[in-house]
Amino acid sequence: MSVKTKQSYATFMKCRECNAEYPLTRLAICNECFAPVDIMYDYDSISLKPFDFHNRPQNIWRYKELLPLNNNKNIIDLNVGYTPLIKCKNLGEILGLKNLYIKNDSVNPTFSFKDRPANVAVSKAIEFGDKVIGCASTGNLAGAVAAQAAKARLNCYVLTPLNTELGKLSQVAAYGANIVGVNGTYDDANRLAVLASEEFGWNIVNVTSRPYYVEGSKTMAFEILEQLNWQTPDQIIIPVASGALFCAINRGLNQFEQIGLVNNNKVKLNGAQASGCSPISTAFKNNQKNITPVEKPDTLAKSIAIGDPGDGDYVLQLSKLTNGRVDDVSDSQITEIIKLIAKSEGIFTEPAGAVTVAMAQNMVKNGQLDSDETVVCCVTGNGLKTTELIDINKNLFKISPSLDSLIDTVRGINNA
Amino acid sequence: MSVKTKQSYATFMKCRECNAEYPLTRLAICNECFAPVDIMYDYDSISLKPFDFHNRPQNIWRYKELLPLNNNKNIIDLNVGYTPLIKCKNLGEILGLKNLYIKNDSVNPTFSFKDRPANVAVSKAIEFGDKVIGCASTGNLAGAVAAQAAKARLNCYVLTPLNTELGKLSQVAAYGANIVGVNGTYDDANRLAVLASEEFGWNIVNVTSRPYYVEGSKTMAFEILEQLNWQTPDQIIIPVASGALFCAINRGLNQFEQIGLVNNNKVKLNGAQASGCSPISTAFKNNQKNITPVEKPDTLAKSIAIGDPGDGDYVLQLSKLTNGRVDDVSDSQITEIIKLIAKSEGIFTEPAGAVTVAMAQNMVKNGQLDSDETVVCCVTGNGLKTTELIDINKNLFKISPSLDSLIDTVRGINNA
Repeated sequence: MSVKTKQSYATFMKCRECNAEYPLTRLAICNECFAPVDIMYDYDSISLKPFDFHNRPQNIWRYKELLPLNNNKNIIDLNVGYTPLIKCKNLGEILGLKNLYIKNDSVNPTFSFKDRPANVAVSKAIEFGDKVIGCASTGNLAGAVAAQAAKARLNCYVLTPLNTELGKLSQVAAYGANIVGVNGTYDDANRLAVLASEEFGWNIVNVTSRPYYVEGSKTMAFEILEQLNWQTPDQIIIPVASGALFCAINRGLNQFEQIGLVNNNKVKLNGAQASGCSPISTAFKNNQKNITPVEKPDTLAKSIAIGDPGDGDYVLQLSKLTNGRVDDVSDSQITEIIKLIAKSEGIFTEPAGAVTVAMAQNMVKNGQLDSDETVVCCVTGNGLKTTELIDINKNLFKISPSLDSLIDTVRGINNA
Repeated sequence: MSVKTKQSYATFMKCRECNAEYPLTRLAICNECFAPVDIMYDYDSISLKPFDFHNRPQNIWRYKELLPLNNNKNIIDLNVGYTPLIKCKNLGEILGLKNLYIKNDSVNPTFSFKDRPANVAVSKAIEFGDKVIGCASTGNLAGAVAAQAAKARLNCYVLTPLNTELGKLSQVAAYGANIVGVNGTYDDANRLAVLASEEFGWNIVNVTSRPYYVEGSKTMAFEILEQLNWQTPDQIIIPVASGALFCAINRGLNQFEQIGLVNNNKVKLNGAQASGCSPISTAFKNNQKNITPVEKPDTLAKSIAIGDPGDGDYVLQLSKLTNGRVDDVSDSQITEIIKLIAKSEGIFTEPAGAVTVAMAQNMVKNGQLDSDETVVCCVTGNGLKTTELIDINKNLFKISPSLDSLIDTVRGINNA
């Protein structure tokens, strides 16, 4: 029998480094040592069985006990999350993996995984009584926050590098947000966002309310476990920008083990970067304990082009702790893999989504993935946002509206 | 208790005009009178209660009894359908509707409602043993069929007008389909597709296997009813191109009434067209029994720019039969409504999705919608496919990476 449970079992916040404890306020970092603070839960009081999820909403709030929102009336109802986990037989055969899955977050309401942290952070901003929200973003978070703000009727500012893809900026503009296009890198935009939160009192969700924000991303781990029928996969491959998603997935896996929904969590967590901005991968390969920031990212995977990743050192630690890896892939491999995923599985992703499958390909070649292992690649974004990377000329045949013209063209295609 | 049911209760096909009956083969139109044939079901043997749906897949195949596939191993698993029905409080307040919903098909796997008919038709093509599939398309169906073909490992040809949006063509190219760009209208492309099915034996899903194809679209009606907790809305507003979706939604409503899942179906069905291609709306307003084709469509709502709609006369009949209407909206209203939906609800759609909300706005003004009625607007496509319609300059503020520059900009925005 299902027992009526509380909305949330979040209890307090705790510094990841010095263990200082704080109440659940709009605190961003530890007052003592400036390290990140994490939201803690009363795990012992949570009693959840697989059956309890049968009648729950098909979105991230099905895991409400492990999300930090007090009142469900503050949820912004855009139906975020519970995206498909797709068994990829065709792609697996090509790569040499018998049990390959794609977690397809391209079908979230604003078409990237960023809806998850934005949905939690902006819902929480309502709970805090904030009137202006914002974010620093490479594009996807901007869309997610702008849409949530629109639905919540909050004023919204997004700070993005000026070189962000036009498709992403158009989407943000449609939602009515103010776009501050910074002539610089993501790190420049993020530094300005920190200053903006101090100067104007805005809730910059990835800064001011980061402890709440990052909780949204761990729902990707919850869903993977539920969709694998409460079994853990052997390996998960995660795109790494700031490293927040990587850490969140680790936390999600541990929390479901903690409350007994899965057993024996030994999932290897792997981080994928683009070679043109790979500070964490470089540190991993050089066996450094800390990352060295990349000054000028240079990759077409713009949405993961963060040169100074806030959670970089934690990704290094956690990848080693879980016996995973961090690696990087080239831009040319990324564009090839975008097409390979689309052609084999009908899933259309942007570069940041393709890096995980590219890394899987490399790991198989290097003997780091066994063909029998259950592998989940996180596809975090949507190919419609970066269509400029697709050359249509190889596929497009222009004809006049006559059967003769069509027959000639088909003959040409078949003889090619 | 749930009883194990058959995969499908489809029994035979029947001509919509002369009632000739046919077995469930790859038949497109009646051999006697060339009218459309519809798939019939053994309704009396179907025993379904709301509870039976609790543990079913979160996609269109949860309604397998009323879909024409014999073997579920032929289902192409892209997780099509079961898209959110979003309560639109903000937009409803602006329009003057207390119970406005958007059925949001922008989050389907290829980001339009066309995944529904394509998923059924291509799965059925596997059952028929077809090796080459194709379609005539204004862009969205092309993406849907190309993705399904990719996953099913079938060779694919899509015929589209050359003026189709680049974003849509890029997506199709990524899936690896052959794009035949016809220098003409959709009707030209469709005529060629009919010839291609005869010349090459291809299964052109919207032609050769149209009776199966259109069955996919009715799942939108099934989902609306289930998501409204098995109640019927008062009005549904549907974008109309060929009219196939309109007819399918009517059929879906009737079938759920027939098997007792809803009672007393009195839903008014309304069709929305763009003024630059409005043959059905024109016939409705002039009280004609048959439509007069539009030779040269001229609207930015390209995905519904079908001048000679195959199901046009049926839409005329059904709109009247259900006490609904057909009307058209201007391109300038469409672009305004795209932004209005995005700004109020965080839902980003293309022109074909915005026509329904535009029509709702007009119907309220004209006293054709009551503020208390439950109204569902079908949003059938994704704004990322037509970002060229969004002017970002009003929202974009370019700054250098300094706090002074940011403060100046924010001051300017606040004083504007």
